[in-house]
Amino acid sequence: MTTVAKVIELVGESGISWDDAMQSAIREASKTLDGITGVEVVNWTASLDNGEIREYKVNMKLAFGVRGDR
Amino acid sequence: MTTVAKVIELVGESGISWDDAMQSAIREASKTLDGITGVEVVNWTASLDNGEIREYKVNMKLAFGVRGDR
Amino acid sequence: MTTVAKVIELVGESGISWDDAMQSAIREASKTLDGITGVEVVNWTASLDNGEIREYKVNMKLAFGVRGDR
Amino acid sequence: MTTVAKVIELVGESGISWDDAMQSAIREASKTLDGITGVEVVNWTASLDNGEIREYKVNMKLAFGVRGDR
Amino acid sequence: MTTVAKVIELVGESGISWDDAMQSAIREASKTLDGITGVEVVNWTASLDNGEIREYKVNMKLAFGVRGDR
Amino acid sequence: MTTVAKVIELVGESGISWDDAMQSAIREASKTLDGITGVEVVNWTASLDNGEIREYKVNMKLAFGVRGDR
Amino acid sequence: MTTVAKVIELVGESGISWDDAMQSAIREASKTLDGITGVEVVNWTASLDNGEIREYKVNMKLAFGVRGDR
Amino acid sequence: MTTVAKVIELVGESGISWDDAMQSAIREASKTLDGITGVEVVNWTASLDNGEIREYKVNMKLAFGVRGDR
Amino acid sequence: MTTVAKVIELVGESGISWDDAMQSAIREASKTLDGITGVEVVNWTASLDNGEIREYKVNMKLAFGVRGDR
Amino acid sequence: MTTVAKVIELVGESGISWDDAMQSAIREASKTLDGITGVEVVNWTASLDNGEIREYKVNMKLAFGVRGDR
Amino acid sequence: MTTVAKVIELVGESGISWDDAMQSAIREASKTLDGITGVEVVNWTASLDNGEIREYKVNMKLAFGVRGDR
Amino acid sequence: MTTVAKVIELVGESGISWDDAMQSAIREASKTLDGITGVEVVNWTASLDNGEIREYKVNMKLAFGVRGDR
Repeated sequence: MTTVAKVIELVGESGISWDDAMQSAIREASKTLDGITGVEVVNWTASLDNGEIREYKVNMKLAFGVRGDR
Repeated sequence: MTTVAKVIELVGESGISWDDAMQSAIREASKTLDGITGVEVVNWTASLDNGEIREYKVNMKLAFGVRGDR
Repeated sequence: MTTVAKVIELVGESGISWDDAMQSAIREASKTLDGITGVEVVNWTASLDNGEIREYKVNMKLAFGVRGDR
Repeated sequence: MTTVAKVIELVGESGISWDDAMQSAIREASKTLDGITGVEVVNWTASLDNGEIREYKVNMKLAFGVRGDR
Repeated sequence: MTTVAKVIELVGESGISWDDAMQSAIREASKTLDGITGVEVVNWTASLDNGEIREYKVNMKLAFGVRGDR
Repeated sequence: MTTVAKVIELVGESGISWDDAMQSAIREASKTLDGITGVEVVNWTASLDNGEIREYKVNMKLAFGVRGDR
Repeated sequence: MTTVAKVIELVGESGISWDDAMQSAIREASKTLDGITGVEVVNWTASLDNGEIREYKVNMKLAFGVRGDR
Repeated sequence: MTTVAKVIELVGESGISWDDAMQSAIREASKTLDGITGVEVVNWTASLDNGEIREYKVNMKLAFGVRGDR
Repeated sequence: MTTVAKVIELVGESGISWDDAMQSAIREASKTLDGITGVEVVNWTASLDNGEIREYKVNMKLAFGVRGDR
Repeated sequence: MTTVAKVIELVGESGISWDDAMQSAIREASKTLDGITGVEVVNWTASLDNGEIREYKVNMKLAFGVRGDR
Repeated sequence: MTTVAKVIELVGESGISWDDAMQSAIREASKTLDGITGVEVVNWTASLDNGEIREYKVNMKLAFGVRGDR
Repeated sequence: MTTVAKVIELVGESGISWDDAMQSAIREASKTLDGITGVEVVNWTASLDNGEIREYKVNMKLAFGVRGDR
C-alpha cells in the first residue's frame, strides 16, 4: 500500500495571540482535509496599529495523508 | 470570524520579460482563485538557446484568502 | 499562449528505499495530475525501530504544467 | 507621494515570557517611532541560571513608515 | 583559566503547550547537566490527531559550561 | 583615517514598478543620508487587488559611509 | 511523564555506497544508544582517488529518546 | 552518451539597467562558451554616486553543456 | 610548498539513476582534471515525462588540487 | 524595568587586517553609542589590487542597550 | 571495519583573540576525546565592555572518530 | 564597453594560519589570473592530528575582471 503525504502552507491570523492564529488555521483546514498529521511554524509576524498589535500571523506548513486509492 | 490565507508556489514563463512572466502567472491564477492578496518572487531564472534568452521564468509564492465559511 | 507551472510538496514513504519512496509519490501524484515535468528532493529522512529503518521518507517538490485554458 | 518604510532589529528581554519580551520592545520603540506597521520574530532565545529561565529574549525586525516629506 | 561551552540539541515534547515542552526539556537536562547558560529554539512543530494537537514539539539548542579541570 | 560604513534596511513601495520602488527609496534616503555607496535588493514582493498589482515592494539593504570625525 | 529526545550528528563512511555509509553509522550508534527513532541526512560527500570514489560519506542527524527517569 | 553541464558564476555590470547587465554578461560569455542552456540570478546589487545609481550589478549562475567527447 | 584546491560545480545527468549521473560527471571531469579529491552533492532533481523519470540530475561541487608550480 | 537592545550592521575597513577593521568599526561606533554589549561578524571580504589585499572588510552586527527611560 | 565520526558543537572563549578561543576549546576537548580530525568555525562573536572586547567567542563544530569496537 | 567579472571558488591551505592560507591561494591565483578585484571567505576549517591543528583551510570566492575584448 502506498503512503503519500502532502504539505501545504497556510497563514493563520488572530487578534488575540499566535497560538490562537495557529489553532484557527488548523480548525479551518480540518473542515476540508482529513488526516492532518503535523504542523511546523515557519514564520511569526504581526501587524500593528498605534503601537498595539492588531493581528498576530503565523506562517505554517501542514502535512496531511493522501489515501492511496484517491 | 476566522481569517486564513493559503500560500501556493507557481512558475510563470514568458518569452518577453520576467515582469511579463509574473503577470501571466497572476492572470492565470486569478481565473480560478479569488482574493489573491500578495506575491513574492523567490527565484529568477531563464533558459537560453544560441546565446539568446528563450524563456524568462519566475518562481513565485502567491497568497490568497480562504473564506471562513468554506 | 500562457505557460504556468504549479509546484507542490509531497512526502513519499516506503519500507524499502528512498528511491522507492520517491517513485511511489510520483506514481500516486500521476493519477490525478497530468504533465508533471520535474521533481526536486529537499529532505531525506527515515524513521527507525530497534536500530532498523522502518520507513524511508523523501520530502520533494513536484512541478506540473497548468494548461492556459483551464 | 513616496512611501518608504524602514526596518530595524531589536532584542526584547523579559523575566516573564517571550510575549512580554516582544511587547516590551514594541512599547519601548513606540515612544520614539511613529507608524510602526509590522513585526517579525527572527530568533527565540533565553538565558538560564540554575536550571531556571532568567531572561526570555526575542530578536525581532520592526518596520515603520517614513513620511515622504521628512 | 579555560572557558569552554558545549552546545547540544534536544527535542522537548508536551501535550499542553510549546512553553511546557521547552520547560520539560530544560528540567530533564538539568538533572544531568550543571551550568546550563542558554537556550535557543530552532524549530516549532506539533503532531495532530483528528484536527487536534496531540504533542507540541520544540527543537532547541542548549549551551552549558564545561569546567576547565574536567 | 578610519573608514566605517553603516548598512540599513528599507522597503520601497511604488504603484508603477519594482525599479520605481527602489529609486523612490534611494531618493528618499538621499535627503537625509550623504555618501550612499551601494544597494542590495533582498526581497521582491507585491500586494494585489482584484488580480491586479497595487503596490510593488522592494526590501533593500543600503550602505553609506560614516565620516571618521562624526 | 516527560518525553525528551536528543539529536546528535554523525558521519558514516563506506567504500561501497552512501546507503551502506548510513546503515553503518546507524548500526554503530545502536550499540550504545537505545530508542533511536529517526534519522535525517544533511550532507552527501565522497572522497576520491584517481577518478574513483574511495569513501562515501553521509553527515546525518540522529534522534533518540531519553528516558524521563534518567 | 554522457551528458554533463558545468555551472559558472558571473557578475554582469551596466550603467543602464539590471536587465542590460545580465544581457551583457550572457553576450560576453557566449563568445567563448557554446551551449549555454540556463541562467539564474542570485544577487541584485548596485553602486551609487551622489544618490544616483552608477552601476547595476547582477550575480548570476550560468549553465552550459560540456560535450561528452571533450 | 603551496597547496591550493579549486572547486567547480557540475551537473551530471543519467537516464538510469542519481548514482550513475554522479559517476558520469566524475568520469567526464577526470578526462581533463587530475587530482580530484572530493565531491559534494548539493541538489537532487529529475525531469519527468508521462509520469516516468526521464533524466536523473545531480548538482555537485568537485574539488581538485592545483599544483603549486602551475 | 524594561530592557531593550538595538542591533545595527556596520562594515569596518582597514588596510592592515580583519581584526583591525573590526576594532576600527567598534571604536568609531563607541563615540556615539553607549552600552555596546556584543558583536557578531557576518561576512569577511577584501578588495585587491595587483594581487595584493588593499582593504580588509568586515560586515558585523553590533548590539547595544537602549535605556528604558529613553 | 566500520568507520564512524561524531560531530559536536563547542563554544571557545578567550580574552585575547578568536584564534586563542579556538585553540583553548580544542585543547580542552582533547583531554577527553581521542582522534579529533577536523574543526569548522560556524560563528564569530564577542562580548564588549566600555567599547573594549572582553571575550572573543568562537562557535565551532568538531569531528572525531569513534572506534568501531566501542 | 562591456564589464563582466567571473567568480571562482578556491580552497587555500596552510600549516601556519588562516591568513596565510588565504594569502597563499591569492598568490597562487595571481600567477594565472589578472585583475583579481575581491575575495570573500565562505568557510573556515582545519584538519587536526593529535590535538594539534595540522592544516588551516579557507574556502573563498574570488572575483576577477574579464576583459570585454576576450
